[in-house]
Amino acid sequence: MKKVVIGQAGGPTSVINATLAGFVEEVMDEYNLTFLQNGYEGLVYGNFLDGTDEINSWIVENKHVPGACLGSGRFPLEAEHIEQCVQQLRNIQADALVVIGGNGTMEALSKIEQEAANTGYELQVIGLPKTVDNDLGGTDHAPGFGSAVRYVAQSTLDISRDLYSMRNFEQVRILETMGRNAGWLALATGFLRRYEEDGPHIILIPERPVKKEIFLKEVDKIIQKNGCAVIVVSEGVKWEGADQIEKEVVDGRKILGGISSEIEFLIKKELKIMARAELLGMNQRSSSMSVSPVDYKEASQAGICGGKWLREGKNKIMVSLQRTKQFDYNINKIPVDLKEVVQEGERLLPDYFIDNHQAYYEWLTPLIGEDLPSYPSPIPRRDSYVREPF
Amino acid sequence: MKKVVIGQAGGPTSVINATLAGFVEEVMDEYNLTFLQNGYEGLVYGNFLDGTDEINSWIVENKHVPGACLGSGRFPLEAEHIEQCVQQLRNIQADALVVIGGNGTMEALSKIEQEAANTGYELQVIGLPKTVDNDLGGTDHAPGFGSAVRYVAQSTLDISRDLYSMRNFEQVRILETMGRNAGWLALATGFLRRYEEDGPHIILIPERPVKKEIFLKEVDKIIQKNGCAVIVVSEGVKWEGADQIEKEVVDGRKILGGISSEIEFLIKKELKIMARAELLGMNQRSSSMSVSPVDYKEASQAGICGGKWLREGKNKIMVSLQRTKQFDYNINKIPVDLKEVVQEGERLLPDYFIDNHQAYYEWLTPLIGEDLPSYPSPIPRRDSYVREPF
Repeated sequence: MKKVVIGQAGGPTSVINATLAGFVEEVMDEYNLTFLQNGYEGLVYGNFLDGTDEINSWIVENKHVPGACLGSGRFPLEAEHIEQCVQQLRNIQADALVVIGGNGTMEALSKIEQEAANTGYELQVIGLPKTVDNDLGGTDHAPGFGSAVRYVAQSTLDISRDLYSMRNFEQVRILETMGRNAGWLALATGFLRRYEEDGPHIILIPERPVKKEIFLKEVDKIIQKNGCAVIVVSEGVKWEGADQIEKEVVDGRKILGGISSEIEFLIKKELKIMARAELLGMNQRSSSMSVSPVDYKEASQAGICGGKWLREGKNKIMVSLQRTKQFDYNINKIPVDLKEVVQEGERLLPDYFIDNHQAYYEWLTPLIGEDLPSYPSPIPRRDSYVREPF
Repeated sequence: MKKVVIGQAGGPTSVINATLAGFVEEVMDEYNLTFLQNGYEGLVYGNFLDGTDEINSWIVENKHVPGACLGSGRFPLEAEHIEQCVQQLRNIQADALVVIGGNGTMEALSKIEQEAANTGYELQVIGLPKTVDNDLGGTDHAPGFGSAVRYVAQSTLDISRDLYSMRNFEQVRILETMGRNAGWLALATGFLRRYEEDGPHIILIPERPVKKEIFLKEVDKIIQKNGCAVIVVSEGVKWEGADQIEKEVVDGRKILGGISSEIEFLIKKELKIMARAELLGMNQRSSSMSVSPVDYKEASQAGICGGKWLREGKNKIMVSLQRTKQFDYNINKIPVDLKEVVQEGERLLPDYFIDNHQAYYEWLTPLIGEDLPSYPSPIPRRDSYVREPF
């Protein structure tokens, strides 16, 4: 039996285990499975887990569980680590390596394959896509994104109704979404917006640095008209001419974050109204309350497809999801060269969507699933507005 | 036709409109309905909305919508305002006043009734219960709480799985819940905990001031054993010997908050590990993703019951929910004197529940509804732990 090593890397999603379980179920009878613990760190240090019947069933039971059940991580892979990875795989005589992840994961996978080839070791590698912020190249979208959108869109609408009803007490809420350099998730918060009174009233994305003066005027205008404003900001948003805002987590290690608090402070100081910043938080990538059925299905299918292609001997590729050109939403799984994925780098929101939110929301529609809330207007009338937030 | 004025006050919940709609449907054919806009502020300034057919149907359509569809508020009612309220009601010749709210709402309602009586104006008053933090006296629990519990319990479990899978990168998450003086909601975050690895590992409640040294030792112990720790803290938690932590929102107005950030800072400084604080946020009181079906039903029934009692002439009372002594969960609606509710004040967690979480979780069970996630253990084994978080 051939031996395949499978792992999960980067920030988890609420459906990353569905991809893992799909893959495991597809290949468990024909392959000797070995699991990687804690992503690439586990590979560097040879932290493997044998795919016994018990472990395999436990993985399958984890299908619906958020987080990465094998352990993930953000291990910074240096050149010497790549060599160590290859050495570890060679030690256990692995025939193939499959990793579920985003941009960084695919880059590492490509490097490991090259290093193996350079040393005459024939290693089959396949990447399985995963991201909440949709910045992974080479694919129409990646599993994890649809559920994250469902979470942020529903939260934003619900919090809007809450704020609207309290606007005599509190005028501004600033909601911070994930998205380091790409505004996919932030812009998606307007997906359920139907009425002018509902938020988000302003969406700030990393692709467009923000001019303070213009921003404050816009907030003031909305407050004058609506009595309150919901502002959504992606964690990676910059003020014009400034850097992204970082927050020290420990001993000099930094993460993005803090822009929503800066906006809160600015609005309180300049407009003298009550403002409250809050992160939409880890629920964006882990909430089991808002899993999109379509996203879950695609996550699982990406894993199954990876298993099939492993058997077929496909190599140096990532499973990508591509829309067919039919009228109805339909996804083909297409192999895309890992090098192409790496070359594309972080995929930002295209100008077309930034300039035409409605087009973006139509593109999003099939990814989110059904049974989403549809509320009557916040004040008694019947007309509904378009979703453009600004 | 008699005229009844109905309004919503205080922080909204995800089911407060179900109470309003239940009441409206019950009485709309027999009473002349007048709606209060923005809670007591609307009453002080006579901001009424006539219950036309259109408005009444719009209210009924809002049944499932979070936030207070009439507008709510936190208007600070001084003595002179009570007189103004009575004057406004007299001006429109109201026969009854019904307000949906928590402790402050019931106190104001009681004062308004007294003021009316003192001036020879016969005004029937009925309070309908609502709270997310369950600190309302005179009732077993109040509508809004069960859905908030569902949100915080599910979020905490999901975020725990996410953190557990990233524990080589990040060790501590601090989740801040609502709850000014009462820890009902914070303690409820352990409701879905089944395994030692899952959070919450520590729950801090306002009823028990925290000793920094002991707390840090406990965190350290959990990290040594588990690799990561999820800490839940109620917004009103104090360090031993210190005051509650407030945050200025604007022009000297303050709200509670900041304890989770203080804990983050403390842990990073003293234990030199990565920690991240995050608020469970406004979704606690507004998320439509996590409405408990039982809570929704009880919210609606509280409104219907208020309507029935209005018709029967019951006065100076609040609708309370009381468990019957039968084996199965069953709720009786009992009228409770508004003065008793006011006298009881903010209801804190009883020592019995603080000392015996399991008893608290059993008490909670019928309020939360079914279809909650049940995950396999975070590492492959079968045994399950009790839910005690510390």
